[in-house]
Amino acid sequence: MSMEADMGPPRFGSIEQLRDALRRFSLERDWDQFHSPKNLAMALIVEAGELLEHFQWMSERESAELTPAKLSEVRAEIADVFIYLVRLADRLGIDLLSAAATKIDQNARRYPADEFRGSSRKYSELKTRD
Amino acid sequence: MSMEADMGPPRFGSIEQLRDALRRFSLERDWDQFHSPKNLAMALIVEAGELLEHFQWMSERESAELTPAKLSEVRAEIADVFIYLVRLADRLGIDLLSAAATKIDQNARRYPADEFRGSSRKYSELKTRD
Amino acid sequence: MSMEADMGPPRFGSIEQLRDALRRFSLERDWDQFHSPKNLAMALIVEAGELLEHFQWMSERESAELTPAKLSEVRAEIADVFIYLVRLADRLGIDLLSAAATKIDQNARRYPADEFRGSSRKYSELKTRD
Amino acid sequence: MSMEADMGPPRFGSIEQLRDALRRFSLERDWDQFHSPKNLAMALIVEAGELLEHFQWMSERESAELTPAKLSEVRAEIADVFIYLVRLADRLGIDLLSAAATKIDQNARRYPADEFRGSSRKYSELKTRD
Repeated sequence: MSMEADMGPPRFGSIEQLRDALRRFSLERDWDQFHSPKNLAMALIVEAGELLEHFQWMSERESAELTPAKLSEVRAEIADVFIYLVRLADRLGIDLLSAAATKIDQNARRYPADEFRGSSRKYSELKTRD
Repeated sequence: MSMEADMGPPRFGSIEQLRDALRRFSLERDWDQFHSPKNLAMALIVEAGELLEHFQWMSERESAELTPAKLSEVRAEIADVFIYLVRLADRLGIDLLSAAATKIDQNARRYPADEFRGSSRKYSELKTRD
Repeated sequence: MSMEADMGPPRFGSIEQLRDALRRFSLERDWDQFHSPKNLAMALIVEAGELLEHFQWMSERESAELTPAKLSEVRAEIADVFIYLVRLADRLGIDLLSAAATKIDQNARRYPADEFRGSSRKYSELKTRD
Repeated sequence: MSMEADMGPPRFGSIEQLRDALRRFSLERDWDQFHSPKNLAMALIVEAGELLEHFQWMSERESAELTPAKLSEVRAEIADVFIYLVRLADRLGIDLLSAAATKIDQNARRYPADEFRGSSRKYSELKTRD
């Protein structure tokens, strides 16, 4: 992975490679001082808001049929959310894939497929278990 | 990767494996009908809010020194954000690592290390470029 | 307005009366130390997330036809958002009604009724003016 | 209250007057069709994110000492949050001041001043009662 501007976009083969690139990016700019978990969690939700803004006046159907131009904008916002999420997890020593695995295992127990199939009423109710 | 409850948590070797597990999880419960990009972007920010709640009254320093119990709670919230992010990207056909690479390349050009090193004033100003 | 628990809920005739009650509430608990604008803006968005959670899996139509039980929950979340908004505005010396008036005046100029009537396409586009 | 662009900003003497102006504003543009509670709750959190963005890299102290230029920007974001909050409450038939009174009464019972005075540890713990 190279950050050299004249070599085109970097390629990341894994979250760890992205994490390392973000560490380097922050170090080179001396920005670690701003990257407390508190601040990174704020930055994450700010970006999540910018992402949501694209969808706020669309119907659900429209949100699934984005134009190429809109999709490109949405992709950039999703990248921002992901970048802050990887950075926050790194600062806290959390492995994202492992944390997701734990959560999916819990969810599989909480929401057995047979019991929670298809009903929006049930789907809505189950959220109250959170 | 297996979702069988009696086989312990699944292990994901890549985002793609997590993505596939989430597809299966949603299919088994017939939840795709609720997972429009609009709704998933909402769910994502709701989880980002639950994550932020843990930090809201902490000082920045405290947020970097979490107790094991608090860290475990934060890990679960980070997992929720990640899960919805992977799900949303999947519904839109977006590759997360590739999108992040594009964004980091842009950021490297916008914020040259020499120009944007260390000052919170500059850091604050540069946000206005977004 | 009285905060005495045995006198029933207080009544506020104006935002100023609510603001004063919140000042007293915070002073009595020595919570001003936590109520920096930064922290209050975080608390506000956390509550906005809890509010949004009620709507995330509903259709738009369902969101307009809440059951009394759900409406009561939503009302409590709206109150939380309002309380933090009044508190934040107070800490910054901002008058909410006056700030809203300024904004509405700007919006009336930016979005002439004749030009922006009814089309979701136009409505979506106009957001790019923000 | 007049929305005429050449008459200067309107003045609102109460939340009800603001609510009525927003009704008129939306009617004149035929925007009620977009203003489902679900969509308005999304718009509210999007604006809360824009508000938070101003504070995300500031220290708490800095957030209490805004420059006039920054304060003006923050004031405009606070106005946006307030406008969507008033609009959402209106669509749901909720009286903001009354909802806040109910909540403050509950909070006064939950957090007796004698028990919850001053400690950030206690303050943090009490949030778990929510």
